[in-house]
Amino acid sequence: MEITSLLLSLFIILVAAKVGGELAERIHQPAVLGELVAGVIVGASVLGLIREDSIISVLAQIGAIVLLFEAGITSDYEAFMSVKLWAFLVACVGVACPFVLGYFVSHYSGLGVMESIFIGATLTATSVGITVRVFQDLGKIKMKEAQIVIGAAVVDDVIGLIILAVVTGIVTSGSVSIANILRLTGYAAAFLGGAIVIGSTAAPYLLKFVHQMRVRGVLFVFAFAFCLILAYFSQLVGLAPIVGAFAAGLILSRTEHQEHVEKQTKPLADIFVPIFFVMMGAAVNINLFNPFNPANHAMLIFAGLIFAVAIFGKIVSGWAVFEKLNKVVIGIGMLPRGEVGLIFAAYGLSHKIIGQQLYVAVLLVIMLTTFITPPLLKMLVAKNK
Amino acid sequence: MEITSLLLSLFIILVAAKVGGELAERIHQPAVLGELVAGVIVGASVLGLIREDSIISVLAQIGAIVLLFEAGITSDYEAFMSVKLWAFLVACVGVACPFVLGYFVSHYSGLGVMESIFIGATLTATSVGITVRVFQDLGKIKMKEAQIVIGAAVVDDVIGLIILAVVTGIVTSGSVSIANILRLTGYAAAFLGGAIVIGSTAAPYLLKFVHQMRVRGVLFVFAFAFCLILAYFSQLVGLAPIVGAFAAGLILSRTEHQEHVEKQTKPLADIFVPIFFVMMGAAVNINLFNPFNPANHAMLIFAGLIFAVAIFGKIVSGWAVFEKLNKVVIGIGMLPRGEVGLIFAAYGLSHKIIGQQLYVAVLLVIMLTTFITPPLLKMLVAKNK
Repeated sequence: MEITSLLLSLFIILVAAKVGGELAERIHQPAVLGELVAGVIVGASVLGLIREDSIISVLAQIGAIVLLFEAGITSDYEAFMSVKLWAFLVACVGVACPFVLGYFVSHYSGLGVMESIFIGATLTATSVGITVRVFQDLGKIKMKEAQIVIGAAVVDDVIGLIILAVVTGIVTSGSVSIANILRLTGYAAAFLGGAIVIGSTAAPYLLKFVHQMRVRGVLFVFAFAFCLILAYFSQLVGLAPIVGAFAAGLILSRTEHQEHVEKQTKPLADIFVPIFFVMMGAAVNINLFNPFNPANHAMLIFAGLIFAVAIFGKIVSGWAVFEKLNKVVIGIGMLPRGEVGLIFAAYGLSHKIIGQQLYVAVLLVIMLTTFITPPLLKMLVAKNK
Repeated sequence: MEITSLLLSLFIILVAAKVGGELAERIHQPAVLGELVAGVIVGASVLGLIREDSIISVLAQIGAIVLLFEAGITSDYEAFMSVKLWAFLVACVGVACPFVLGYFVSHYSGLGVMESIFIGATLTATSVGITVRVFQDLGKIKMKEAQIVIGAAVVDDVIGLIILAVVTGIVTSGSVSIANILRLTGYAAAFLGGAIVIGSTAAPYLLKFVHQMRVRGVLFVFAFAFCLILAYFSQLVGLAPIVGAFAAGLILSRTEHQEHVEKQTKPLADIFVPIFFVMMGAAVNINLFNPFNPANHAMLIFAGLIFAVAIFGKIVSGWAVFEKLNKVVIGIGMLPRGEVGLIFAAYGLSHKIIGQQLYVAVLLVIMLTTFITPPLLKMLVAKNK
């Protein structure tokens, strides 16, 4: 019976995720890093406890949808509006630099155009979740640099999702014409903009109607159904389903029920999001990391190159702020690629845009940027005071 | 892509469930009835919006697991202990009568031994959820009759799960010897008893350990992982996974974290449980209900017969109480088969113990018993005061 092995797999995934997350936090690292490492350990290349399976992979995709839905709901618009100009500039530089540099480094390393675009795109991401967590942990969430970074990470998320949409479209259509990119950017922007404008207008009325219903859990179920249908539509118009999920969260974050929906989404995210991260880690073949195997040298050198690009491309974004602020703190705050980068990488692997070797190189960079940010920021902010 | 149609299906299921549940409550019926009817409507035989699909069916099974986990967590042991003798007697009579009568009526109607046992077993269930809700809605939850019915429904759940385990075992082994039944009853009782004794002893220590962990959602994730692993073990020893889920809930209900876990389980149940009920309804072929089609007469007559058995068998259970209480209220309170009966019926259909026609007959009886209880109880209790 299919359900039997699924129950065991889910048990292993959840326990591994939480033990990994806990250990990571104990050594002052973000929990997501622990979940990834836990995934690598329970995955096929180490313990072999978890196997690729169509149902688990669907559950992991639902995990990504819930994650972006939650990210949308918890977006802090007020904080963003107060620093919007700087945040916008930082996000633009922080997207453009890694993308352009990533593309050229990849292309001159001998990769094809499609692969190079994809590597560049993956490097543009900034993880809101990790950034927020790190500043929270340091008790510096109110400092202006933090607000700019968080604002920029939100903008970055949106730009990142548009880039993912464009890349998805290029993969589907198979061609990389400028007209195509413009058309897809238009689609993505129109979908996000349209969803947000129409959604924001309609949501209060819809919610008022739903609020009059009395049956158990109706508000939350409708909120989640709203997330599902926007995810469906975004996939229908050729975007990734997470774009719609994020838009749905964003729309609901501006309604009076934001707090309730956020609270109810949390347990759902607690269960589903770890499935996504653990399965992400489980897709890694640890043997590719072995530096003593000459077959891995090319990949490891390439990972080193794009790691340098990933660091440099984001740190310069701090200088997009012309005010007297700590530009290095802003630049470092933009470093962690986290879940958005992982979603890119997973998408690339599952759609065969990049192979196992490139996937591992990208994953290595994502994990390293995620890994070094907390200690670096801690050091800088402490010195700063 | 598989995920696209899944997103749309889940959206339809959730919206249909809540709209159906709301309409049912508006006409003073339990929400579960509305979810079933909504399922029939969106199912293949009416609108055809939802198709059978392996992933949705797994999600529905997870729904049943979450439902029984929640039922276990919310079990009220204190209320049960104060009326335990009467509750136990009512439960025993309420299981024995419908089972024996159901078996003989089915067998003399020409059904095989296996089918007859299964029909009898399905009629033994009592829905705790519906019973609690009805007494709550009437504001009579504290009256002694209500406490006895709720206690009996809990005992009934446990006996029902043992019966399901036995039936599962008989189906797997293919034989119906007394030795087999005793062995399987022993297994089921030992598993439930063992899980509860070992679990209750170990849970506080385990929870104390988990409570020291600081990572997000760790307590709830471990609680749910505990549910998954008990569900896995119960299936491993030949019982249904819901038996383990119920046991896990029962064990956690007696710990100090009961309230927290219950609160966190609710949103998960809000999303998953409707999938179970709607898919249950969607499995019904509405054309079999048509009384103008002579092909359906035999089934409808048989449904009438087992409906009479279902009513009579439970009402007599009220007379198992020798105290001066309203025995009819107790008997009527035991009527609704609800989710436990549905789990039986779904199990029988998916394991080909019963065919479509018998499934529909059983479903009809479950829905009718669930349907008539609220108005009958309302009438009786109002008259009583």
